[in-house]
Amino acid sequence: MVIVMHSDASEDHLRTVVERVESLGLAAHVSRGTERTVIRVIGDERFVDHQTFEALDGVERVVPILHRFRLASRDLHPQDRVIELPGGILLGSKDVVMMAGPCAVESREQLQEAAGAVHAAGVKVLRAGAFKPRSSPYSFQGLGQKGLLMLREVADELGMSVITEVLTPEDVPEVAEHAEMLQIGTRNMANFRLLRAVGKATKPVLVKRGWGATLDELLLAAEYVLAEGNEQVAVCERGIRTFETSTRFTVDINAIPALKQISSLPVVVDPSHGTGRADLVAPVARAGVAAGADGLLVEVHPNPPEALSDGAQALTPMGFAKLMEEVRRVAGAVGRGVS
Amino acid sequence: MVIVMHSDASEDHLRTVVERVESLGLAAHVSRGTERTVIRVIGDERFVDHQTFEALDGVERVVPILHRFRLASRDLHPQDRVIELPGGILLGSKDVVMMAGPCAVESREQLQEAAGAVHAAGVKVLRAGAFKPRSSPYSFQGLGQKGLLMLREVADELGMSVITEVLTPEDVPEVAEHAEMLQIGTRNMANFRLLRAVGKATKPVLVKRGWGATLDELLLAAEYVLAEGNEQVAVCERGIRTFETSTRFTVDINAIPALKQISSLPVVVDPSHGTGRADLVAPVARAGVAAGADGLLVEVHPNPPEALSDGAQALTPMGFAKLMEEVRRVAGAVGRGVS
Amino acid sequence: MVIVMHSDASEDHLRTVVERVESLGLAAHVSRGTERTVIRVIGDERFVDHQTFEALDGVERVVPILHRFRLASRDLHPQDRVIELPGGILLGSKDVVMMAGPCAVESREQLQEAAGAVHAAGVKVLRAGAFKPRSSPYSFQGLGQKGLLMLREVADELGMSVITEVLTPEDVPEVAEHAEMLQIGTRNMANFRLLRAVGKATKPVLVKRGWGATLDELLLAAEYVLAEGNEQVAVCERGIRTFETSTRFTVDINAIPALKQISSLPVVVDPSHGTGRADLVAPVARAGVAAGADGLLVEVHPNPPEALSDGAQALTPMGFAKLMEEVRRVAGAVGRGVS
Amino acid sequence: MVIVMHSDASEDHLRTVVERVESLGLAAHVSRGTERTVIRVIGDERFVDHQTFEALDGVERVVPILHRFRLASRDLHPQDRVIELPGGILLGSKDVVMMAGPCAVESREQLQEAAGAVHAAGVKVLRAGAFKPRSSPYSFQGLGQKGLLMLREVADELGMSVITEVLTPEDVPEVAEHAEMLQIGTRNMANFRLLRAVGKATKPVLVKRGWGATLDELLLAAEYVLAEGNEQVAVCERGIRTFETSTRFTVDINAIPALKQISSLPVVVDPSHGTGRADLVAPVARAGVAAGADGLLVEVHPNPPEALSDGAQALTPMGFAKLMEEVRRVAGAVGRGVS
Repeated sequence: MVIVMHSDASEDHLRTVVERVESLGLAAHVSRGTERTVIRVIGDERFVDHQTFEALDGVERVVPILHRFRLASRDLHPQDRVIELPGGILLGSKDVVMMAGPCAVESREQLQEAAGAVHAAGVKVLRAGAFKPRSSPYSFQGLGQKGLLMLREVADELGMSVITEVLTPEDVPEVAEHAEMLQIGTRNMANFRLLRAVGKATKPVLVKRGWGATLDELLLAAEYVLAEGNEQVAVCERGIRTFETSTRFTVDINAIPALKQISSLPVVVDPSHGTGRADLVAPVARAGVAAGADGLLVEVHPNPPEALSDGAQALTPMGFAKLMEEVRRVAGAVGRGVS
Repeated sequence: MVIVMHSDASEDHLRTVVERVESLGLAAHVSRGTERTVIRVIGDERFVDHQTFEALDGVERVVPILHRFRLASRDLHPQDRVIELPGGILLGSKDVVMMAGPCAVESREQLQEAAGAVHAAGVKVLRAGAFKPRSSPYSFQGLGQKGLLMLREVADELGMSVITEVLTPEDVPEVAEHAEMLQIGTRNMANFRLLRAVGKATKPVLVKRGWGATLDELLLAAEYVLAEGNEQVAVCERGIRTFETSTRFTVDINAIPALKQISSLPVVVDPSHGTGRADLVAPVARAGVAAGADGLLVEVHPNPPEALSDGAQALTPMGFAKLMEEVRRVAGAVGRGVS
Repeated sequence: MVIVMHSDASEDHLRTVVERVESLGLAAHVSRGTERTVIRVIGDERFVDHQTFEALDGVERVVPILHRFRLASRDLHPQDRVIELPGGILLGSKDVVMMAGPCAVESREQLQEAAGAVHAAGVKVLRAGAFKPRSSPYSFQGLGQKGLLMLREVADELGMSVITEVLTPEDVPEVAEHAEMLQIGTRNMANFRLLRAVGKATKPVLVKRGWGATLDELLLAAEYVLAEGNEQVAVCERGIRTFETSTRFTVDINAIPALKQISSLPVVVDPSHGTGRADLVAPVARAGVAAGADGLLVEVHPNPPEALSDGAQALTPMGFAKLMEEVRRVAGAVGRGVS
Repeated sequence: MVIVMHSDASEDHLRTVVERVESLGLAAHVSRGTERTVIRVIGDERFVDHQTFEALDGVERVVPILHRFRLASRDLHPQDRVIELPGGILLGSKDVVMMAGPCAVESREQLQEAAGAVHAAGVKVLRAGAFKPRSSPYSFQGLGQKGLLMLREVADELGMSVITEVLTPEDVPEVAEHAEMLQIGTRNMANFRLLRAVGKATKPVLVKRGWGATLDELLLAAEYVLAEGNEQVAVCERGIRTFETSTRFTVDINAIPALKQISSLPVVVDPSHGTGRADLVAPVARAGVAAGADGLLVEVHPNPPEALSDGAQALTPMGFAKLMEEVRRVAGAVGRGVS
C-alpha cells in the first residue's frame, strides 16, 4: 500500500499517519519528493482497510499494491489449478471442456432432446437451470426441485455430468447432491452467504462474473469459496455491462488472458449470455478458445422460439454441432483438444 | 411490443410470427413499410417473453413498448406512494427524510456516539449495518445478531427508528423484528429469493439499485416485493459503475426525476456510497434534494479513521451537522422541509 | 510515480529500472517489502511517460502520483480562476452564470424568438450553434458562417454575449471575431489541434467533457489551451455514456465538486445534453447549482417539435422562465446569485 | 420509426402527431392497443429527426426501426466490400491482413528496425504515426511531416504499404500523398470535418471506433466518408471504455461479428490499444481472427522501454514473430490465410 500525502499536508499529519501504520503492526517507509510525500506501507495489506488511512487528515489518496485475494492468486499458487469431473474430464488442463444444454429445464422431453443433441456432438457436461433467477417476477422461474431431479435423471441416462445454478444457501445441500458442479450466477457473485455455503460443499464451483464486477472482485468472490476450504473453483466471463446496446452484454475478451496471468483458476467463457444473440455465439465461442479459455458454457434448445427463457441466444442442435466443429479446429490451432 | 422483420423476411416468416402471436392470446397488427414490415402486438406484453419472437426466423428485433413492472409503475398507481415510519415520519411526502448513522455497528460506544450526533442534528431514522456484505473475506463482516440488538437498544434510548440491511432470506424474520425498515443492499438487488422474503414481511423495504442495474431492473426488483403483497417499498440511487475512477461510483442524478416520472415509489439518494469520498458527500446530498429526492442515506462516524468499514466516506458529527444545515436550505428552496 | 516490481523480479531487473529512472534525471527511492519491492520516483513525473517503465522486465505496474495537468491544477493555482465576459458577467465567481438559447441557429425569426425569451428571463449569454457536429451526415449540419453572423446580430440587438461552438482550427479566427466565448464540443475534446488553435485565440474557451473522457482527460484538454497562453478556460460536465438507456447520457454530478477540488477552473453543467429529455432539464439544472456549478448551459426553442436538432431536450420559453425561478431559489440556498 | 403515445395522451395529441408525420411526406399507421397507442411511420426515417416527434405533447418515446446509415449497411450493399492495397493485398477478402509497426516514428533507425522486423515476419503494410494525438500537451507529439517522409522512404526500401493517422483536414492532401491508407484515430471518429476531408481523398480510409462510440455511431462515421464518394472504407475495433481497470480498454469482441452482420465493410482489430498490455496482445489478436476480423493492427518496437509512446503495449520483434505464427494457425482454423 502506498499513501500519498496532500501537497499541503503538515509534518503533524505525516506523523499521525506513520503512527497509525505502526499501530497496526506494519512498517512505514517515508519518501519525500519534490511535490508529494509518499509513505510505503510494509506488511500484508490484504488485512488492512485502506480507508483507515484515506480518512486521516492530510492524506490525498491510498494506492493498493497487492491484489486483495491470496488463495486465488498465482503468486501463492503458481501452477494451474485443475478441477476433475467424472469421466476423466479435467477443467483447467489441456482440453477445452464443453458444457452445454438448455437455459432452463422446461420438461423431460425438452431436456432429453437438448441433452441428447449436445451429447451426440461430444459434450460430457450438461448445463441447465432448475432454479432460475429472472429480472421480472412475471417470467418463468424454473421447475425447481422437480427440474433438478429431471436433470439428474436425464444426465444419468446419457452418462453426463451436471452443472446447475444454486440460488440460496439453504438449497446448497440438495443441489450438491444432484450435480457434479455448482454454478453461482452473475446476479449472485457478491452474495457472500451463498459463496460461503458452496465453499463448505464438496462439489466444484463455477463463479460467474457479476456483469458490473471487476476482475479483482470476481477473484475475491472465488476467494470466499477457497477460504472455506473448497479448492475446486473456476471462474466464468459471461459479458459485462457497457454502453453498447447492439448486444445484451459485452464479452470482455481481455479478461481471459488477464485472469490467467494473476490467478491459477480455470477460466470459462459463456458466449450465449455474453452476446444474447444466437448468431454471435459461434464466433465469440471461437474467440474465447483462441484467447485461452479452459471451457465454454453454451445454451442449446431443441426449438428456440418455444424456449421459456433466453430463446434468442439458444443454438439449435444443428447450430451447436457446427459450433463444436469450429471450436475443435480453433482449439487445435492453439494446441488444445476438446472434451 | 413491436416486432421488426428482416428486410429479406418472407411471407412465410411473417405468417409464422403472426400465428405465434395469436397462439399466445394476443392480437397482431401488421404494418408494411418501404423497407421493413413491422408487427405491433396487442395485449399485456409483460407476461410474454420477447425472446420467443426474436428466435423466430425472419425477425430482426423486438422492441418492448411497456415497462415490465406494473405495481411499481405510475401508470397503474398515479399518486405518490408514501411510507409511514414511527413518529409521524412520512417517506415520499413533503419532507425529505434523513437516515444517518455509521456504516457498521462496531461497538456500543461507537454506535451511541454516532447515533447521538445524528439525533442531535435532527435525524429520526438511524442507519447502521449489523450484517455487512464485504468484497473481501478478510474484511470486517459486521457484528451480526449482537450488532442488531445493540442497534435496537441504542435507537430505543433515543426514540429513533432503525433501517438496516438484511442479507439472506432466513435472517428476514429476525431483522424485521428489530428494525422499522429493511434494506436490500446493492449487491442483493437481484437476489430474488431475498426480495420475495422481504415481500412477505410487514415492514417497509428500501431497495438499493445494483451498481450495474438499469432503472427498469431496479423497479422490477421493487416489483418482486410489491408482488408479494408488501406495498411499502422505496428505491435508492446509490451510484452506478462507470469508467470514471476519481470517485468510487457515479451518482446517477438523472435517475431521481426519471424514476419519479415512471414510478410512484419514494426515491432515496445515498451520497456516501455514491461518491466514496467524505469531501463530496455534502454537495451531492444537496444535489439529490434539489433534484427531487424524498430521502437521504448518509454515513456518519464519530472518528472516521477508526472506522472498521468505509471510513473514507464517513462524515464526522461536525461535518454532518453542517450538511443538515445545507440540506435544510436547499429543501426549502424546492418547497420541502426536512425530517 | 511509484513502480511496483513483480514478486519474482530479480536484482538485475531492479537495477535496470533504477538506472533508467536515473538516466532520465530523476531519483529513485527503493522500498523492499514483504511481497513486493516498490520504487518511488522523485521528480516531475508529468514529463515522463510511465509506459517507459511498464515495458521493462520485472515491472508489474506503474502508479502515477500526480495528476498530469499543471496549469489547470489547484496545486499550482490555488485561487479560483474567473472569466470575465462583457456586462460584468463573471464566470467562476459568486453568481451562477446562465447561458441559454437554441441548439442551432435555424433562422433569424427562430433565433430572435429564442434569444428574446431567454433575455426576458434574465440571461445575458446567448448560446446557439452555427457549425453543428451531427452523428449522421443526413442530419441538419447548421447554417455555418451565415448562422454565425445572424447570431452576432441578434445578440447585439439584445446586448447579449455569444457562446458558440467551433469545429476546426481554420474556423477559429472567424468564430473568435463574432463570439465572446468559444465552445469546444464533446466530440472534439480530444481534438488537440483545435485545442491549440483556441489556445492561441484571445477569447475565453469552454471545453466540454468528452462523453467517454475521465476528469483527468478533461483537465488535460483544458491544459492544452492554457499551455498556449490562453488563461480564460472553463470546463463543462455534459453527461457521460453509461449503460443506462432511459436518458441519453448520465450527468456525472460527482464531477462538479471533484473538479473544483483538483482544479481552479470554473465548472459549467449542461442539463440539456446531459439528460436528452426536456422533462428532466429543470431538476438536473437545480442539482447542478446545488452541487456547486458556476454556470448552466440550457437549450431553449420557441417551438421544440419544429427544432432542426435536439428538439426533445429543448425547453419552451415558458418552461425556461420557470427553470430560472427555480435556479434562483436554489442558488440563493447555496449562497449565490444568478446572472 | 415507431411512436409510442403516453397512456394518458388525448385524441388531439394523436391527431397532431399524425398531422406532423404526414406534413413530412410520410405515412402513419395508427395501432390502438390495450395500454398504449402506437404509430408506425412509413418512409425513409434516416432523413427525419426522431426528436421532432419526441418533443410533441402526448408522445412517450420514439423507437427507430432502421439503422441511420445506408451506404455502410449490408441491406443496401449485401456483398462484402473489399479494399485493394498495392501488392495484391485485399482487405475484406479471404486473407487476414496484418498491419504492424511502431506506435510512432521516432527516428530513421528505430523505424527501419521495426519495419525490418515486421517485414521479415511477412507483413506488407507498415503502420506508424507521424502526427500523434496525445492526452497530455507535455507528451511526445510525433515528428510530423518529417516523420511522414521517413515513413514513406522506409516503406519504399522494403516494398511495403503505409497506413498512418491524419489529424486535421488541412493535412489530408499531404498524408494522402505519402500513405496508401489513411487512419482516423479513435479521438477523431466524430470529427466530421475530417471525415468529409478523407471522403474526398482517393486513398482507402480506416475509421477507428471512438472508445465511447456505439457500433451505429462508428458506421455513421464511415457513412460520412462513403457519402463523399470514397468507397474504400474499413472500420476498426480498438477497445471501448468500461469500468474494468486491469486493462486500458476492453476489446468488444462481439462487435466483430455484429458489425459484419449489419455492414459489408471490412473489420480490423487493434489488440495493442485494445488491451494496453504487451502480454495480452497475442491472445486477443488470436481471438480477433477467430471471431472473423479481416485485419489486425499491431504495435511493434525494437526496444519497447525506449519507446516515446505506448511502450507498455508494444511487442518486441521476437514477440511479434511468435504472434504471426499463432495468427497463421488460428486463421487456418477458420479457413483463412494471412497476408
